[in-house]
Amino acid sequence: MRRLYHFPLSPFCRKIRIVMAEKKLQFELVEEPAWERRPAFLALNPAGEVPVLIEPDGEALADSQAIAEYLEELEPEPPLLGRHPRERAEIRRLVNWFDRKFCTEVTDNLVGEKVMGRLVHKTGPDSRAIRAGHANIGVHLDYIGFLVERRNWLAGDRLSIADITAAAHLSCVDYLGDIPWDDYEEAKVWYARIKSRPSLRPLLADLVPGMPPAKVYADLDF
Amino acid sequence: MRRLYHFPLSPFCRKIRIVMAEKKLQFELVEEPAWERRPAFLALNPAGEVPVLIEPDGEALADSQAIAEYLEELEPEPPLLGRHPRERAEIRRLVNWFDRKFCTEVTDNLVGEKVMGRLVHKTGPDSRAIRAGHANIGVHLDYIGFLVERRNWLAGDRLSIADITAAAHLSCVDYLGDIPWDDYEEAKVWYARIKSRPSLRPLLADLVPGMPPAKVYADLDF
Repeated sequence: MRRLYHFPLSPFCRKIRIVMAEKKLQFELVEEPAWERRPAFLALNPAGEVPVLIEPDGEALADSQAIAEYLEELEPEPPLLGRHPRERAEIRRLVNWFDRKFCTEVTDNLVGEKVMGRLVHKTGPDSRAIRAGHANIGVHLDYIGFLVERRNWLAGDRLSIADITAAAHLSCVDYLGDIPWDDYEEAKVWYARIKSRPSLRPLLADLVPGMPPAKVYADLDF
Repeated sequence: MRRLYHFPLSPFCRKIRIVMAEKKLQFELVEEPAWERRPAFLALNPAGEVPVLIEPDGEALADSQAIAEYLEELEPEPPLLGRHPRERAEIRRLVNWFDRKFCTEVTDNLVGEKVMGRLVHKTGPDSRAIRAGHANIGVHLDYIGFLVERRNWLAGDRLSIADITAAAHLSCVDYLGDIPWDDYEEAKVWYARIKSRPSLRPLLADLVPGMPPAKVYADLDF
């Protein structure tokens, strides 16, 4: 069986967990505190980051987008990367929007500070980072609203890795209760649709010890 | 003809310029000071970043990796993304190594501070960032050496987008003369090979006004 080294509140790991669930692939989860930099883990991924996917023959694959593209090539159904070059370009543009832009502007400032700061650096969050994360989130929720007013899903007619990547980041921030959903109705309706998919159910049961999720986190009627 | 909105010392734009040159695609370059946030440019890419590729029919594509994958699908020869799923996973892992890890640890600290700081924020570089950039670069040059001791190119037997992405970032840092090549012999031999390719020649003629390149920058025998 495939094995995925992960951390519950890593959006990059969540992306792969959702992709594998959508494709009905069986896998075993192994929690890896990557910040401890275990030599055996660094041998799997010299970048020292989760996710790392171990294939049944023992081959280790690293980097969430490399893994997502690999799974798409091996298991094309259901297609999560579009069927035509321009569709795929739009999906990949939005994947990087969330994995780079949203991550730097929001996820790192909120999840990075509140969760990783506490687990790794044993410090309280930097209040400037928290303020920046809150200040930045609205632009992204507006952009989601803009897209889903024009399209069924973020990148087009079908659910794609763009939606999955966005939901992976937003769900980590939502664990902290830091998303002002009621001010962003279109984004909320989109998130309610993806949140209710069976592929997200295991994520909604995630629990970081000593840090229970916000009340809205697992609620499908938030 | 295709048109590429770019900035000379953007590694993400350089990646696309090299890919198009390797594939012998004709294109016109348009310099875009993305930090000025021209409304007409934001309409092409709401992320406000270069590169943006305009196709002959007027369609705009954004995000360097989305563009690189799109060009690979449209113009598969020569193949720059490998031929098999695991080869491609390794290439994409290394692309993200340079576009995320190297970029955050080195490019942003050196090129970001010295060039963009001056052009955009009209300030001198932050000396802590410069020190961090210099401190971080060795690990990456060692890793390049580690890879090319085992493989012909970074990700395998053939030149790939992994080499192109690495060269795109390194060439921006090299413009500043900030790479201690003589301490990293294997990385230097690899860079000399890619630097001498015709696809890199236009980059070696780049010139940022008021900021001439280091003496070694365009020298093939550095």
